[in-house]
Amino acid sequence: MIVVMKAGATKEQVQHVVELVREYGLKEHLIHGTDRTVVACIGDKRGVDKGAIENAPMVEKVVPILAPYKMASLEVKKDKTEIAIGPDGFCIGGKKIGVIAGPCSVENRDSLLKTAEAVKKAGCVGIRGGAYKPRTSPYSFQGMGEEGLKILAEARDATGLAVVTEVIGVEQIDAVEEYADVLQIGARNMQHYPLLEALGRTRKPVMLKRGLSARLDEFLLAAEYIINGGNSQVILCERGIRTFEEYVRNTLCLSAVAELNDKTHLPVVIDPSHGTGHAHLVPAMSQAAVAAGADALLIECHLDPEHAASDGAQSITPDVLAALVKRLQRIAQAIDRDL
Amino acid sequence: MIVVMKAGATKEQVQHVVELVREYGLKEHLIHGTDRTVVACIGDKRGVDKGAIENAPMVEKVVPILAPYKMASLEVKKDKTEIAIGPDGFCIGGKKIGVIAGPCSVENRDSLLKTAEAVKKAGCVGIRGGAYKPRTSPYSFQGMGEEGLKILAEARDATGLAVVTEVIGVEQIDAVEEYADVLQIGARNMQHYPLLEALGRTRKPVMLKRGLSARLDEFLLAAEYIINGGNSQVILCERGIRTFEEYVRNTLCLSAVAELNDKTHLPVVIDPSHGTGHAHLVPAMSQAAVAAGADALLIECHLDPEHAASDGAQSITPDVLAALVKRLQRIAQAIDRDL
Amino acid sequence: MIVVMKAGATKEQVQHVVELVREYGLKEHLIHGTDRTVVACIGDKRGVDKGAIENAPMVEKVVPILAPYKMASLEVKKDKTEIAIGPDGFCIGGKKIGVIAGPCSVENRDSLLKTAEAVKKAGCVGIRGGAYKPRTSPYSFQGMGEEGLKILAEARDATGLAVVTEVIGVEQIDAVEEYADVLQIGARNMQHYPLLEALGRTRKPVMLKRGLSARLDEFLLAAEYIINGGNSQVILCERGIRTFEEYVRNTLCLSAVAELNDKTHLPVVIDPSHGTGHAHLVPAMSQAAVAAGADALLIECHLDPEHAASDGAQSITPDVLAALVKRLQRIAQAIDRDL
Amino acid sequence: MIVVMKAGATKEQVQHVVELVREYGLKEHLIHGTDRTVVACIGDKRGVDKGAIENAPMVEKVVPILAPYKMASLEVKKDKTEIAIGPDGFCIGGKKIGVIAGPCSVENRDSLLKTAEAVKKAGCVGIRGGAYKPRTSPYSFQGMGEEGLKILAEARDATGLAVVTEVIGVEQIDAVEEYADVLQIGARNMQHYPLLEALGRTRKPVMLKRGLSARLDEFLLAAEYIINGGNSQVILCERGIRTFEEYVRNTLCLSAVAELNDKTHLPVVIDPSHGTGHAHLVPAMSQAAVAAGADALLIECHLDPEHAASDGAQSITPDVLAALVKRLQRIAQAIDRDL
Repeated sequence: MIVVMKAGATKEQVQHVVELVREYGLKEHLIHGTDRTVVACIGDKRGVDKGAIENAPMVEKVVPILAPYKMASLEVKKDKTEIAIGPDGFCIGGKKIGVIAGPCSVENRDSLLKTAEAVKKAGCVGIRGGAYKPRTSPYSFQGMGEEGLKILAEARDATGLAVVTEVIGVEQIDAVEEYADVLQIGARNMQHYPLLEALGRTRKPVMLKRGLSARLDEFLLAAEYIINGGNSQVILCERGIRTFEEYVRNTLCLSAVAELNDKTHLPVVIDPSHGTGHAHLVPAMSQAAVAAGADALLIECHLDPEHAASDGAQSITPDVLAALVKRLQRIAQAIDRDL
Repeated sequence: MIVVMKAGATKEQVQHVVELVREYGLKEHLIHGTDRTVVACIGDKRGVDKGAIENAPMVEKVVPILAPYKMASLEVKKDKTEIAIGPDGFCIGGKKIGVIAGPCSVENRDSLLKTAEAVKKAGCVGIRGGAYKPRTSPYSFQGMGEEGLKILAEARDATGLAVVTEVIGVEQIDAVEEYADVLQIGARNMQHYPLLEALGRTRKPVMLKRGLSARLDEFLLAAEYIINGGNSQVILCERGIRTFEEYVRNTLCLSAVAELNDKTHLPVVIDPSHGTGHAHLVPAMSQAAVAAGADALLIECHLDPEHAASDGAQSITPDVLAALVKRLQRIAQAIDRDL
Repeated sequence: MIVVMKAGATKEQVQHVVELVREYGLKEHLIHGTDRTVVACIGDKRGVDKGAIENAPMVEKVVPILAPYKMASLEVKKDKTEIAIGPDGFCIGGKKIGVIAGPCSVENRDSLLKTAEAVKKAGCVGIRGGAYKPRTSPYSFQGMGEEGLKILAEARDATGLAVVTEVIGVEQIDAVEEYADVLQIGARNMQHYPLLEALGRTRKPVMLKRGLSARLDEFLLAAEYIINGGNSQVILCERGIRTFEEYVRNTLCLSAVAELNDKTHLPVVIDPSHGTGHAHLVPAMSQAAVAAGADALLIECHLDPEHAASDGAQSITPDVLAALVKRLQRIAQAIDRDL
Repeated sequence: MIVVMKAGATKEQVQHVVELVREYGLKEHLIHGTDRTVVACIGDKRGVDKGAIENAPMVEKVVPILAPYKMASLEVKKDKTEIAIGPDGFCIGGKKIGVIAGPCSVENRDSLLKTAEAVKKAGCVGIRGGAYKPRTSPYSFQGMGEEGLKILAEARDATGLAVVTEVIGVEQIDAVEEYADVLQIGARNMQHYPLLEALGRTRKPVMLKRGLSARLDEFLLAAEYIINGGNSQVILCERGIRTFEEYVRNTLCLSAVAELNDKTHLPVVIDPSHGTGHAHLVPAMSQAAVAAGADALLIECHLDPEHAASDGAQSITPDVLAALVKRLQRIAQAIDRDL
């Protein structure tokens, strides 16, 4: 941590900061520059509230040096984490790239089973589908609940696909853990700490979606909550952020893939469906995600998007999916991976 | 809802959209423009997923006409909602503007009681303080829990101030409802629907903070969840959004006050502490908020910000608070209100 | 400048950075922390490209310590700059707050003269109006050019109001300087350096608008270009930034007023018209701006907004303006200023 | 254009809007919905200021239907524009993807010629390098001016590479046109209309960079200025937008490639260097850009990034470039293109 004093800070004011820093268990190191005095603070104290020091007289700013997360960091664990999912044990984070596809919501048994079959045939490794739906409006379809979970499990039994589905509250963890292979946390719950803590106590892989306005550090700190709670099987999912752009639902910057690979050992999945919001943009962004180094894709696919109960605009059909997976395979090979 | 067809859409493609619209229970109205055909859809169907229609062939975009919320709307209830809080029944949403102040977290009994006394003396109507803390890092101070709630209740008994404190999960609602006067929902939980639904079943006023990247419509839809659940005592709290700005913790655009007053009957509170992140910006933004028409302010105040367990950078001292409240009073009178 | 090495950087790699730093004319100061080595660099070298150092092996990041601007800084000049404008020499930056109002574009002689009269009567100190218009679309009204400038000068002669009008290219500087009292640079030209440099050579006050996506540092650096060029009469104008918000044209965070007052001696003007984009939000934000400490307001006012050639949505009528100025006066007095 | 009236608008208020719409040369079409009356306006009037109508009594909002640009639109010209650049006439917009690389600034003759040689050997089709530099700070290196242009031309003569270099003001157009093959307009000048108009009168291809906070419509309208001025050889260059992200210099959302291909016939180039700001992110994003469908890449490459006069952090070395181009070739082939 570096404390930058304002120009004109007196000796006493610098000394005051030095004492404050010591109280927090850190060792100070003074640097007298041309215009500014800087108090470098030595010691690994991630819990110190830098803001408290910022409020001391004549402090201009406090700059943290260490990343705030530990266990999610590549510095702590050098080899990439591989996470096996589903009955076939597909490894997310390995050389092979996986595609997980399916509808936004489980709408009924028949269509889900048909979708699962098409998804399997297209070459995917997992089926997605929401049984509990966090919806912006109380007047929108809220999901089938446990009934939906059972249908998903049936689809897994029929196809061997891993089931990925969302948990929206602490209350549903038990049910979802019973039926699903991967417990997804939605973007809006990325910082719902009671849920993160509870998921730390489960034994199933967790797919954590980045919040719409979360910085990468905050994303990794949310993962840290789960790992710190005892569950190290965390898959990160980037699905875009909210910006001034209007032509997309979210702004999906694939630099995140390379940056996360540089900072953490956790595998990184891209969701081009929420990341664009429009079916016609999904193929290009899926291709780009694979070329950028993503470990897996999470794609919304619906038999009849015009009648989807939710997210129809961003759902592609099984035909588009099948053609896309073929192209993704070729791109994966072009960067010496496979799919 | 207006469906805009792409240029060159055939009669059949337009007819297909017409049929789709009818399936959704809406009545269509065709407009043939110079370059585009537009299908205007008549009927009050807030639950329709406009995205599904967007995926139909040759549809360019779907533009909603109606606001997605109802009960929070000024169209449904013309007179402003006034919400009485605390033992003295101060009315948020009335002519008088109220200031609620206190530390970010309840840290111990002694300092909280002293702060409450100072806050009361400064002319405030409520005390804030977190007992359960949602923290970005698992290594930060997580709050005193129920012990903190008891201290807050004791402070109320000693001063008559209303107690405003955060609920971070469904599990704590009962405890918080027992001790607090206003149940606050933090920005990160604005779209945690299980919590919103559960708060719909409480009988205490709820202060709902706007999420860091929530649009105003989404903010009002979150309020709608609570009202729809049975609790119409919702106080909206604007605390800034996340943007590219670096000199503030959040970007606090006070246009929201005027816009919300134009769209909803719910009272609007401004939190200049989270809205700026820096103590030196809090007075100016508090003054601006009152001048813009806010019904109340929520301000972080700490006896010794340099040693605050959280949010030290944005906490002002009781002295600064007392001087500020005096200035706010004069501004309130200048716009024919009071404080 | 602080260079943070990655964990695991070798002695040689640190030494390499030390040598690089010396090449750039800086003195190094090594700090060996628990996990990281930090190279603090001493010396006032604003011209060094920190990026070059960031590209050295095992450098994690480079953190600048000094603000990049000098002459615009409060550290260099402690007393606030007051800038006299127009025939009456109203001082922007003094105790009195000034309101400058007028149409977006000068549309014709008659309406401009009538508007000027109404603006004067309402208690304003300046008239605004574009003669050269930077328009997003080539198909929109592009302004009256020099003819418009002459009308503005006539309005000044008739009323004593200072004339504020935009320069959109180096070519028009002479003409605008001849007729106007304040040369305005629009948000889209904030970083058009040939224009900034040319304005450094004029002798008229310059009103520099903040770019839609400019950080405060960049805003002050743009001012620095003009001051560095020889013209120290720079008035800063905040008019909002672009964010994900949809209900406003721009997001106007008034924290900028307090922050700029803390960083620079230059006066600060707020433009609530572009800062909101909607006439119904202008009064509240004007009030808030005065309460936040703005030195002046720049407001779009049109006799008949429904027929305005540009910016009709955000123009208020003379009646609304007159009532608003009265309220602003009371608010100014409430914070011990005047208007 | 669709005018949405507020709930409760009277017949007279609707009639007033109808008359206003007619005055603007449009034909109205009334739709009486459940809660709202909507006035659909028919006619192709891109020049109408929708804001003026928004200011009429009881108008809630005005929704444009037509895109504001024409000549840049795919509706007007169905086949993709191919633009030949440089002595070898490489076609930007054709099946082959081109890479243009080189330093941020031309720093001296020797290094530029060496870089050009390396760039050519790596398989690129163009050399980039700034002779006139728009710099955020007046204290930064401002470029070599015409001397730099001559060096670039010499590099072209030696290698056959096309020269791409920036014009920062109307004054330099003649000089740049004399020496360069493609005239680049920087992001900060995207809306400097005098420059756009002047470039409409040149006969050389123009590479127009998207502004940091420009929406796609505004980007295409800037292109429209140039085309409308008489020069239809416009190459669009996406280089990222400004958002809250901190780990990148800009947020580069490659959805723009697919969306622009859906809206315009102009070729699309990606600049992964400005789009990320960090050399370690450039390869992944270059790969992603090719996979997403970009027609060309603009990459900063420097012999010795640690000593670059500008943009050192985001410059890759010739070795990294050569390896990258090989990978890009394979990816291009995987999507049935070439490089």
